[in-house]
Amino acid sequence: MSFHTHACILSTGDEIITGQLLDTNSRYLAEQLTSLGISIVEFAAVPDDLDALVHTLRRLASRAPLLIMSGGLGPTEGDLTRHALAVATGQGLVTDEAALRHLTAWLAGRGRTMNERQARQALRPSGATCLPNAVGTAPGLHSRIDSPTPGSAGTDVFCLPGPPGELSSMWLASVVPMLRPEPSRVVATRLLHVVGIPEADLVTRLGPLMKRDRVPLIGVTASQGVLTIRLRMAASTGSAQAEQALDADEATLRELLGDHLFGRGQDTLPAVVLSTLRDRHETLATVESCTGGLLGALLTAIPGSSASFAGGLLTYSNDLKTRLAGVDPALIAAHGAVSEHVASAMAAGGLHATGAHHAVAITGIAGPDGGSPAKPVGTVCIAHAWQSKSGTSGPTAPVSVDVRRFRFTGDRDDIRQRAARTGLAMVYFQLFGRPLSEPRLLWQLDAPK
Amino acid sequence: MSFHTHACILSTGDEIITGQLLDTNSRYLAEQLTSLGISIVEFAAVPDDLDALVHTLRRLASRAPLLIMSGGLGPTEGDLTRHALAVATGQGLVTDEAALRHLTAWLAGRGRTMNERQARQALRPSGATCLPNAVGTAPGLHSRIDSPTPGSAGTDVFCLPGPPGELSSMWLASVVPMLRPEPSRVVATRLLHVVGIPEADLVTRLGPLMKRDRVPLIGVTASQGVLTIRLRMAASTGSAQAEQALDADEATLRELLGDHLFGRGQDTLPAVVLSTLRDRHETLATVESCTGGLLGALLTAIPGSSASFAGGLLTYSNDLKTRLAGVDPALIAAHGAVSEHVASAMAAGGLHATGAHHAVAITGIAGPDGGSPAKPVGTVCIAHAWQSKSGTSGPTAPVSVDVRRFRFTGDRDDIRQRAARTGLAMVYFQLFGRPLSEPRLLWQLDAPK
Repeated sequence: MSFHTHACILSTGDEIITGQLLDTNSRYLAEQLTSLGISIVEFAAVPDDLDALVHTLRRLASRAPLLIMSGGLGPTEGDLTRHALAVATGQGLVTDEAALRHLTAWLAGRGRTMNERQARQALRPSGATCLPNAVGTAPGLHSRIDSPTPGSAGTDVFCLPGPPGELSSMWLASVVPMLRPEPSRVVATRLLHVVGIPEADLVTRLGPLMKRDRVPLIGVTASQGVLTIRLRMAASTGSAQAEQALDADEATLRELLGDHLFGRGQDTLPAVVLSTLRDRHETLATVESCTGGLLGALLTAIPGSSASFAGGLLTYSNDLKTRLAGVDPALIAAHGAVSEHVASAMAAGGLHATGAHHAVAITGIAGPDGGSPAKPVGTVCIAHAWQSKSGTSGPTAPVSVDVRRFRFTGDRDDIRQRAARTGLAMVYFQLFGRPLSEPRLLWQLDAPK
Repeated sequence: MSFHTHACILSTGDEIITGQLLDTNSRYLAEQLTSLGISIVEFAAVPDDLDALVHTLRRLASRAPLLIMSGGLGPTEGDLTRHALAVATGQGLVTDEAALRHLTAWLAGRGRTMNERQARQALRPSGATCLPNAVGTAPGLHSRIDSPTPGSAGTDVFCLPGPPGELSSMWLASVVPMLRPEPSRVVATRLLHVVGIPEADLVTRLGPLMKRDRVPLIGVTASQGVLTIRLRMAASTGSAQAEQALDADEATLRELLGDHLFGRGQDTLPAVVLSTLRDRHETLATVESCTGGLLGALLTAIPGSSASFAGGLLTYSNDLKTRLAGVDPALIAAHGAVSEHVASAMAAGGLHATGAHHAVAITGIAGPDGGSPAKPVGTVCIAHAWQSKSGTSGPTAPVSVDVRRFRFTGDRDDIRQRAARTGLAMVYFQLFGRPLSEPRLLWQLDAPK
């Protein structure tokens, strides 16, 4: 038997193809296959249409020795996967007696009786085998589509149910044990996360490291102010060698990027900031205007955040900037609510109100309205205040403040997401005790005033 | 010119094909195309590989008169869409001077200078036109791929940037005006949003309305505590007839569902609550523990929320429940931070601290740790406090409080999202002045104590 070196993924369903449902199955399968060292050649999705399904099954089978399909196994008239597989493999449909018994028992256990539509789910192409469904009614299918090339091994096709819980359970229980990834062909991957450099500058710094034919292959993805560097190497000579190559590249990247590189793998910026604070026995508070709670929500999405996140103030209206954070109304009148002065006063007021060691304050214009020529939509002032002497707090404790003005791009959501992450980046850089050279952070406009 | 009767959608990106990133663009484009009456024939996604891109562009162009592609327009070497389109159309790459000037100005406005990699983004196939990017650097592309069939009109190809905000803005501004949907081929759809009924109960109430062969077709999707009923009818005989049929169904559904039906179309629960408050000249404040800012973030995601959202308190630690919301520490000691008593005190304290007319307080156990047999993970107490007499505020004003205990299912994120939306639902039902009969809201455990 040949190895499953690469694979295609196929989804079927009108609800996917009309945009009603987001296809999360293909992503799950892609992650799983990638981690097994099986490269993905193509994703496809087609409507619930017999001709389209048969054509696409055959086309994808000619592209890879493994084809994983999801959807179309339910009891409705729109569920055509069984029929399409029968046509594509040139077989008739037969009832699988074991599957029928299982289906009858499953329904009986829920006080229901079999109807004609449900019985369709026990049909299979005569040469296919059924895969048991531990959490639903529809069994999966496994078959082979012969290669048109004589002597070639053909393609293993696995058809899985569309509901994600049924798909993942059947994948792990029935499909993974039947896969034949090439034993020596490990794909080693590593993710490194970077903040505070624009994507184009990062790419320039990396230079020849990003050549498309380089091994390991290095790529960059940007998401809401955080850049992720992906290292990837198909390790045909064994995983130890691949890991060594990735280690060497990671060391080079750390050298090049310094403290801009804040994490690896599943690390996130909120988690890194929270765990650093926890190790230092320090707490963080937030004072949010234009982000309106988004920064707090990002921090508290991390399990265990209560060890270092104290809480904060949502000072959305000017009145609450004064009532809750003690910002002098004269300061707002003189400089506007979106100003370095007000951001600093919000942060200092947040420290005082909460007794935390650090406070991040965000005030800006998220749009779509409210911009002006001097302060266009996307203008955001962020201040980080911290107790200069550890162990002291209260109105007389010495407080340091770093404040910056940014101009973020994108729509309201982008601006808010970037503002929240940039606030975290300011805390991160200060925590690591390195001076903030200019220009240090993405989209920064001016030096502090 | 022929009509754009059907279309294919293509995504490119190693991060999609390896499962690192979920492809939400294809779904957005599919929804948009479907609403214009353009059928989707196929989705495909391929790696950042020139041969695969060229092959797939040509293959999909032969399947439909319209092809929408996303991704691969950034500044890195892995961004190959321009090159692939040039090869697929048999053209050379040239620099688009207008795009280059725009790019230079965009960077200059942010205090940055152009580098060689960024300049790549102004390249286009010689016969293509650039589509302006209002919110980012990479312009889109529009070109035609000729049909191999003589006399056939060929395929319009639109290449859009991968970041969703850039894609949707370019889609609406530049692509939609150039589309030629068939005028008589309308698909009429309607969305109705429901809160406070479990999905299975809703399906039972709808009964025969949900038959798969019914016209209009009615379906239900559940998301984070809100149910959406989708009505859909292909109106080959004209849109007026279809709209009449949808109107009749909507009237039936309103009769069946009463005030559980809170909105239609693009309405969201936060937007409906905010606009109702605005019309009444009332304001809302939030006091969040386990949701940590998520409710505030949901409200302030709505443009114009400042008209009725005042701000709030993130009382994540017990200390801040007392410092910021004035909750008596003895109450926390006696009943626990997750209790009806503490939720009520938080909400009343929030009214007092902010001067708002309404305050919603949320305290619960989002997990994965912190549960107990008496209060398992998912236990959340939510209180809504409001000033009983309009026009009065301050510590002596009469305050009414409604408090409920819930048990939400799912992971940390699910529990927090459902808690935030249930808090909004409590305000929504109270605003509409109807008594809250039991059991009114999803997952509710007990009557108030």
